Amino acid sequence: MKLAYSAASPYVRKVMILAHECGLADRIEKVPTAVRPDQPNIAYGSTNPLMKVPALTTDGGEVLFDSRVICAYLDTLHSGRKLIPETGGARWKALRLEAFGDGMTDAALLVRYETFLRPENLRWKEWIDGQSLKVTQALDQLESEPDQLAGDVTIGHIAVAAGLGWISFRNIVDAFAGRPKLKAWFEKMSERPSLKATAPAA
Amino acid sequence: MKLAYSAASPYVRKVMILAHECGLADRIEKVPTAVRPDQPNIAYGSTNPLMKVPALTTDGGEVLFDSRVICAYLDTLHSGRKLIPETGGARWKALRLEAFGDGMTDAALLVRYETFLRPENLRWKEWIDGQSLKVTQALDQLESEPDQLAGDVTIGHIAVAAGLGWISFRNIVDAFAGRPKLKAWFEKMSERPSLKATAPAA
Repeated sequence: MKLAYSAASPYVRKVMILAHECGLADRIEKVPTAVRPDQPNIAYGSTNPLMKVPALTTDGGEVLFDSRVICAYLDTLHSGRKLIPETGGARWKALRLEAFGDGMTDAALLVRYETFLRPENLRWKEWIDGQSLKVTQALDQLESEPDQLAGDVTIGHIAVAAGLGWISFRNIVDAFAGRPKLKAWFEKMSERPSLKATAPAA
Repeated sequence: MKLAYSAASPYVRKVMILAHECGLADRIEKVPTAVRPDQPNIAYGSTNPLMKVPALTTDGGEVLFDSRVICAYLDTLHSGRKLIPETGGARWKALRLEAFGDGMTDAALLVRYETFLRPENLRWKEWIDGQSLKVTQALDQLESEPDQLAGDVTIGHIAVAAGLGWISFRNIVDAFAGRPKLKAWFEKMSERPSLKATAPAA
């Protein structure tokens, strides 16, 4: 399988964490792929018209995206414990937490685009504040309802960990100040080989 | 069940199209919910910290989001044909198409925010062009590979139809000019009662 890959992308990391957890990382060939919303990668557009990473080209030649679909697909390729529970309350808890992690990361990414990519004279304070508030409210809820993060690792934990790692790496907000439970959870999660193998490089 | 609802949201419409297709629309109480990234709806933040619609509060009191998770959940509540095929190639085809439709809509929504919400003197041409290109490339691929849209209606078709309807409604790009196959497909799809019942109001 080939994965359109960018080392700093939190969604690529999410896929790779899951791949490591499932023993599939060795089967994935990483294809370095540069994507920036203001500098379209037209060549890559023939693989993924949305020009986002990750995208997975399966051994059968199909192109799957986005990270949720890729993770769901990879989770069918191994015989171990499923990281996306197949039925019942556990399934909705995991998928909700995945959407929560992805949504937090989406907002953080919009902050990054606004404060890093966009020319300084075109930045809009209300936009930065509004997206940052989504991030901090999400972090606050993770801190105040730690049961969400209890139990065996699922795709939900992986999405939150990939997002938290990226928010810290890019210094979007101070994710752990005043959030000791979340900090302790993330530190423990970060000890897993799957997270160590995929940590964003400085 | 209660659905945090905004009549113009393409993701709310996606959920409601699926609900109508599955005979569940009558069981959903719509709760009008105003969301704008530059004007945080703090009260709604206690339901969904990401302050986006849709969010579904189940009869058991759990809050599910985003549209993908809600659609997957609703599809387990009826005994008819599943709109998300459960296994095999049909599953990945449908989920890929859903991600494709959602991704196209995400880019279109960013164009809308930039050209409608954001103060005129803070707009960035490269951003508008880059996001618009994602939309038009997605539309072009739907036109050039019509097999994607063949077959029984799935969550993929619903996501694409909700996105196309919104792109036309908001006039983000001219979705159908030079794309006769896509136009014919959308016109046929729009005749379904589920689409008629959920069309965005002018």
